[in-house]
Amino acid sequence: MGPNVQTFIGCGAPYNEATTVLFGAPFDSTTSYRPGARFASSAIRSESIGIETYSPYQGADLEDFKIFDAGDLDLPFGNAARVMDTIEAFCGKLHDNGKMPVMIGGEHLVTFGAVRAAAARFPDLRVMHFDAHADLRRDYMGEFLSHATVMRRVWDLLGDGRIYQFGIRSGTREEFEWAASHARTELFTLNSIDSCAEAVCRYPAYVSVDLDVIDPSEFPGTGTPEAGGVSFRDLLDALLCLKGLDVVGFDICELSPHYDSSGVSTALACKLLREMLIAYS
Amino acid sequence: MGPNVQTFIGCGAPYNEATTVLFGAPFDSTTSYRPGARFASSAIRSESIGIETYSPYQGADLEDFKIFDAGDLDLPFGNAARVMDTIEAFCGKLHDNGKMPVMIGGEHLVTFGAVRAAAARFPDLRVMHFDAHADLRRDYMGEFLSHATVMRRVWDLLGDGRIYQFGIRSGTREEFEWAASHARTELFTLNSIDSCAEAVCRYPAYVSVDLDVIDPSEFPGTGTPEAGGVSFRDLLDALLCLKGLDVVGFDICELSPHYDSSGVSTALACKLLREMLIAYS
Amino acid sequence: MGPNVQTFIGCGAPYNEATTVLFGAPFDSTTSYRPGARFASSAIRSESIGIETYSPYQGADLEDFKIFDAGDLDLPFGNAARVMDTIEAFCGKLHDNGKMPVMIGGEHLVTFGAVRAAAARFPDLRVMHFDAHADLRRDYMGEFLSHATVMRRVWDLLGDGRIYQFGIRSGTREEFEWAASHARTELFTLNSIDSCAEAVCRYPAYVSVDLDVIDPSEFPGTGTPEAGGVSFRDLLDALLCLKGLDVVGFDICELSPHYDSSGVSTALACKLLREMLIAYS
Amino acid sequence: MGPNVQTFIGCGAPYNEATTVLFGAPFDSTTSYRPGARFASSAIRSESIGIETYSPYQGADLEDFKIFDAGDLDLPFGNAARVMDTIEAFCGKLHDNGKMPVMIGGEHLVTFGAVRAAAARFPDLRVMHFDAHADLRRDYMGEFLSHATVMRRVWDLLGDGRIYQFGIRSGTREEFEWAASHARTELFTLNSIDSCAEAVCRYPAYVSVDLDVIDPSEFPGTGTPEAGGVSFRDLLDALLCLKGLDVVGFDICELSPHYDSSGVSTALACKLLREMLIAYS
Amino acid sequence: MGPNVQTFIGCGAPYNEATTVLFGAPFDSTTSYRPGARFASSAIRSESIGIETYSPYQGADLEDFKIFDAGDLDLPFGNAARVMDTIEAFCGKLHDNGKMPVMIGGEHLVTFGAVRAAAARFPDLRVMHFDAHADLRRDYMGEFLSHATVMRRVWDLLGDGRIYQFGIRSGTREEFEWAASHARTELFTLNSIDSCAEAVCRYPAYVSVDLDVIDPSEFPGTGTPEAGGVSFRDLLDALLCLKGLDVVGFDICELSPHYDSSGVSTALACKLLREMLIAYS
Amino acid sequence: MGPNVQTFIGCGAPYNEATTVLFGAPFDSTTSYRPGARFASSAIRSESIGIETYSPYQGADLEDFKIFDAGDLDLPFGNAARVMDTIEAFCGKLHDNGKMPVMIGGEHLVTFGAVRAAAARFPDLRVMHFDAHADLRRDYMGEFLSHATVMRRVWDLLGDGRIYQFGIRSGTREEFEWAASHARTELFTLNSIDSCAEAVCRYPAYVSVDLDVIDPSEFPGTGTPEAGGVSFRDLLDALLCLKGLDVVGFDICELSPHYDSSGVSTALACKLLREMLIAYS
Repeated sequence: MGPNVQTFIGCGAPYNEATTVLFGAPFDSTTSYRPGARFASSAIRSESIGIETYSPYQGADLEDFKIFDAGDLDLPFGNAARVMDTIEAFCGKLHDNGKMPVMIGGEHLVTFGAVRAAAARFPDLRVMHFDAHADLRRDYMGEFLSHATVMRRVWDLLGDGRIYQFGIRSGTREEFEWAASHARTELFTLNSIDSCAEAVCRYPAYVSVDLDVIDPSEFPGTGTPEAGGVSFRDLLDALLCLKGLDVVGFDICELSPHYDSSGVSTALACKLLREMLIAYS
Repeated sequence: MGPNVQTFIGCGAPYNEATTVLFGAPFDSTTSYRPGARFASSAIRSESIGIETYSPYQGADLEDFKIFDAGDLDLPFGNAARVMDTIEAFCGKLHDNGKMPVMIGGEHLVTFGAVRAAAARFPDLRVMHFDAHADLRRDYMGEFLSHATVMRRVWDLLGDGRIYQFGIRSGTREEFEWAASHARTELFTLNSIDSCAEAVCRYPAYVSVDLDVIDPSEFPGTGTPEAGGVSFRDLLDALLCLKGLDVVGFDICELSPHYDSSGVSTALACKLLREMLIAYS
Repeated sequence: MGPNVQTFIGCGAPYNEATTVLFGAPFDSTTSYRPGARFASSAIRSESIGIETYSPYQGADLEDFKIFDAGDLDLPFGNAARVMDTIEAFCGKLHDNGKMPVMIGGEHLVTFGAVRAAAARFPDLRVMHFDAHADLRRDYMGEFLSHATVMRRVWDLLGDGRIYQFGIRSGTREEFEWAASHARTELFTLNSIDSCAEAVCRYPAYVSVDLDVIDPSEFPGTGTPEAGGVSFRDLLDALLCLKGLDVVGFDICELSPHYDSSGVSTALACKLLREMLIAYS
Repeated sequence: MGPNVQTFIGCGAPYNEATTVLFGAPFDSTTSYRPGARFASSAIRSESIGIETYSPYQGADLEDFKIFDAGDLDLPFGNAARVMDTIEAFCGKLHDNGKMPVMIGGEHLVTFGAVRAAAARFPDLRVMHFDAHADLRRDYMGEFLSHATVMRRVWDLLGDGRIYQFGIRSGTREEFEWAASHARTELFTLNSIDSCAEAVCRYPAYVSVDLDVIDPSEFPGTGTPEAGGVSFRDLLDALLCLKGLDVVGFDICELSPHYDSSGVSTALACKLLREMLIAYS
Repeated sequence: MGPNVQTFIGCGAPYNEATTVLFGAPFDSTTSYRPGARFASSAIRSESIGIETYSPYQGADLEDFKIFDAGDLDLPFGNAARVMDTIEAFCGKLHDNGKMPVMIGGEHLVTFGAVRAAAARFPDLRVMHFDAHADLRRDYMGEFLSHATVMRRVWDLLGDGRIYQFGIRSGTREEFEWAASHARTELFTLNSIDSCAEAVCRYPAYVSVDLDVIDPSEFPGTGTPEAGGVSFRDLLDALLCLKGLDVVGFDICELSPHYDSSGVSTALACKLLREMLIAYS
Repeated sequence: MGPNVQTFIGCGAPYNEATTVLFGAPFDSTTSYRPGARFASSAIRSESIGIETYSPYQGADLEDFKIFDAGDLDLPFGNAARVMDTIEAFCGKLHDNGKMPVMIGGEHLVTFGAVRAAAARFPDLRVMHFDAHADLRRDYMGEFLSHATVMRRVWDLLGDGRIYQFGIRSGTREEFEWAASHARTELFTLNSIDSCAEAVCRYPAYVSVDLDVIDPSEFPGTGTPEAGGVSFRDLLDALLCLKGLDVVGFDICELSPHYDSSGVSTALACKLLREMLIAYS
């Protein structure tokens, strides 16, 4: 009799056979407003039994793929630099073993660790960034590693024109002015997804979804809800537009399950993760 | 001085004069994920005072109709077969007295009891089924009477081509494959409602609304929320499309009020019930 | 070292320099269904730190304006007449000092106090009223000052054709019949906003937003949620349509923060208030 | 078939046969801090099915008594004077018909209406008052009818030495100084209950329980929780000490069920009500 | 790299070396009032990281013992008989392998399955039963397998004088009368624990804790809260009194974590389980 | 007209006249389990209006004292060292101005900053530490500044025999062994308070209250609830025992208000803070 194994539904492949590896990064120490994203990966695993493994959107089943769920990383609270190193090392090992890393955040800063690992191996990397917030500050209260600076840190690695942002509807005046000359930032909607997908199709791509891009009506369980977001269905359609890209890694971040006592946000995150796993694996 | 009577707003007609009889079926024992639909009828009655009896959508008032609220059936938890019998017997008596039964679930399995009573009296019965889930499994963990099998049991009674499904967005691969040759299943949306209403107009119809067909943003208070649903307004428009049909009974199921601490789901259910009572009475 | 000051974000101007004055009216004693709007102004101030002062919708920043936050009025619970007098006196003083009053309710009755002050100074006043409920009853259980009668009381002051209502989807038959000959009432939607803005553009206008005009999916934190409402984005667009008007005062009412444990409703109210302050200051 | 009747468990006697009549007074308009006591009577009735009718504390069953549940009074929000009149009239009629009134508040002010009815008929009336708060202010923000003044108003009727207070642990300095010469006020505990019961045994007594006398750990569902209260068991023992008195009416007030999402407070109130009905009927 | 293993803290021994085996029985279909105990085992495992493995009460550490966590049984909702068989078979296998079964319920009915396995192997079995409710009904709405009948079913197996009940404070008159001649039932408190422990010390004992024996103030997360319970500390002391007994199996039941949004109930259950595992392993 | 000032009730003295200065330290980045203590100071200020300024326990009123509420410090999330420096500097300035610092945490680590300031000025300082957890680890996951190490860091400053711990009921075996020779640690209860107060009476004392020392039944709103705690009344009595000491600073930490939706925990913290301010000012 073996010990109790808990994975995301349909992710029961052994590590050696897996082409995709799912893991959690339960870290939220730099969150400035409402913390709790640390609980996302655990909630997503245990609530995933509420959905089916089959996707009627794609006509495919999660169990048709070879996906391994590695559980959560051990991350020291309060030391963002060490956390970045741990995530980068883990993702790097997966890349080197020919497996695609899929990360469940945590606050959005964790994306920086994963992108560092990808950028080191895929020099042409592009980042597709779905978010309510621009996350482009140079620093936040003097700190460089912060949920509010994460895409600026990604830009430090990748440079101009490599970051595509969708659904952005919050930021400082400085962030929007900076973005105008350094990133491709679509305000409020996802309409440019087709043309962006076309522009990126020859490059390896990392897809980062800050779930607060979705309207708080559909996704209240997040630290910094911003009214006026996109719908689940619109986001799903946009993400399926990227199906033909060479996605080398992706993440979903900023589910804070305790802020949604109905469980609807966690259920949505489970469904979105199923669809992304099917689409990009 | 009489005892304390509690009914759904505007449903104060005496039984003998009533053409429509409302009742609750507080049962959720086969629910596999999150129970609580047993509390729906009680919550709907007590929260109904928060809405008006007048519908600006239809320009009519609930008090223009003769509706009797019979309260809740006494249902033994954990014995689905006895529960089906009790519901069938109660609905049958209403049919035989010339009154339309209107049931507040409970989990969706309760629909099977009501449909059995209707099918026995209206051999040409059609079922209009609004739901996020196909509910077409042959069995669930070996059990034949289950919320996940209810429309398959209805098919056992009615046979091919009699079940019209709308808004379905979750199920196993097997359910969708089976549905292709046995039911009329519209995925994700309600667009086919006009043509279906036309096809059904010559037959007696039973309308069953699993409230989780509505998007969880508008209706979080349900056991198995599925992102990507229809809006209240779309559902209402579709249900009003059926106004011309010979509706011989209807139900609303799967409100689980405790999962929505804001009370919004219960308020929506009250409003939908008002509209359906006005439209079909 | 000065005492702890708490204001809505970006509203740090001194009173003397301010052109706009924000204040709270924490009163909900006539609420007949679910009270709690008394907590709105406090919640909005403390949660406003979760949003930015910059609006990407208008390309402007709250800090570009001179706004003073006066805190909350002291209002005696259970004495609606005294409350009306207090609000009228306070708003009147602001008008007389050349400052625009901006009120955070409270239940919707508080609007009557603010409109009394405005109507006394701007005899041509028009009221733009966004709400799920008509609020046009002559009295409520024999009381004339009630959340359910507030627009009728405004009509007592202004007379026929001066009240423009948008998004209304609940009321008694009598209210809708009365409205047909005394107000300009748009059911369900905001589509007539352009033509109404044009009709009103030569007059001073008071804008009153009962936040329950927004769909409960986006705004569950209110006393009487009514399904089928407008979206935040639609409401924002409509309110920005009024940007060219001579707005002499405005309010947002009926946030009841305790009914939304996710905090999403309060966050939306903060954002809407930011946009209105930028648009009308 | 009769309409849906909802009563407190075991209170199914017809009015004519009843010796005790239970009713609700859903009023909370003068509440200055957190409203919601208006929902108490409805919550108590519907949750009472979670307890048994039998009391192992007293070895007796609620069904051994003749108790009628009259439902809730219709009370106009925002007009405390009319509310007092309505309660007094209703209780007076019960007294005149030889039945004991038992009231479920509502905020504590409702007690004043019931005591007025009793005092008019029982000139020697004593009041046994269990509460965390002294409720002895002369006025509250200029209002005389307020939850914070209710026992002062009772004193206006009864005069010195007729009010016995237990468990008091909050008040202004002025209230405590006033109490020293006008009432019998026990701080923090219920230890004097025996001697007080003896002192009162020759007089008709009205028992008023503000449920916040109980520690918030056991009873969080109240508007103004005060740490350091008595336990349910201590309160029950004290109330059973009064069993031999000539109790001519009693009430339980200030359950605010929405503030306790666990339902524990409502369940406690149900149990306490069962015990008091058995003890005093 | 191995898959994600989730166990109760400190329960990481392999099956073969373990002397104690922990498992979950997530079943609550016969619950008549508020369901949700099905979520207990999952909640207890994931929240156990909030406590230490070391017990200052016993001066011992969970990691000093060999305990295996087998995860949850697969139980069909709505078929109580099959559920009993599954639990009995699993426990029986553990007994036959020389391991002590420790079960996390589920509703209290699951105890019957575990006791059947124990009674078949230990004919002299005694049951120590901690509960707010007597659970001694002959049947419940005609059903014999019910949470309300579980100790009566245990009596069917064991006969008179073998069941010791503690803390009981709710039941029908019939249950208490029946108990007087068939069981050893202590009302309200745990004071007889010493003498009972002495009486039982020569026999194999099964310990069943319905967590609602604890006062709802300390343990609100349960389906049927009963005011007037014992404290955690009193219960722990009583359970440690049984340390010298030959405990052959035990369970904790009726945690319903969703009813306690603070998480305090789950944390208490984790701590109690740690103490029982240390005391009886 | 001045801006909106928000202080703890009764703390309206100007800085220059004040003998006591209250401030918040909203920091919780090293919290390893459930964050949220950052919201405590804001919640305590806004909820303080629910209690009176008068204490019947001490027969004194908060308004008899000169207390200034300085609001919250600006603390960078994720940089514990900078946070310690900021707190130390602020407290040091207060000490140097002859004012007693009173801090509302935040997680318990903030105590280290305040003690550093006190120890630098009062070399004989003793620390009276009330807590459920020993907080004596050498490091936590390699980090030295952590909520789990705070009393060990205090020991680094003060050395053996200067730390008095009360109510401790959780820790690792290593912590308890270490404590035996380096601190004065009372397990579970507060009984040694009198003798400790006597031992400390000649020295300056800092009092640190981790509010989770209180039983979770009375105080569920904390990150790491530990069953089996002391009561509010016991804690208050113990704290009043210290009234004669030369208290040079104190704090209350680890209220996490979002985990207690009833608001009871915040209300208790307000009351305790009132009592400590009166006792030690």
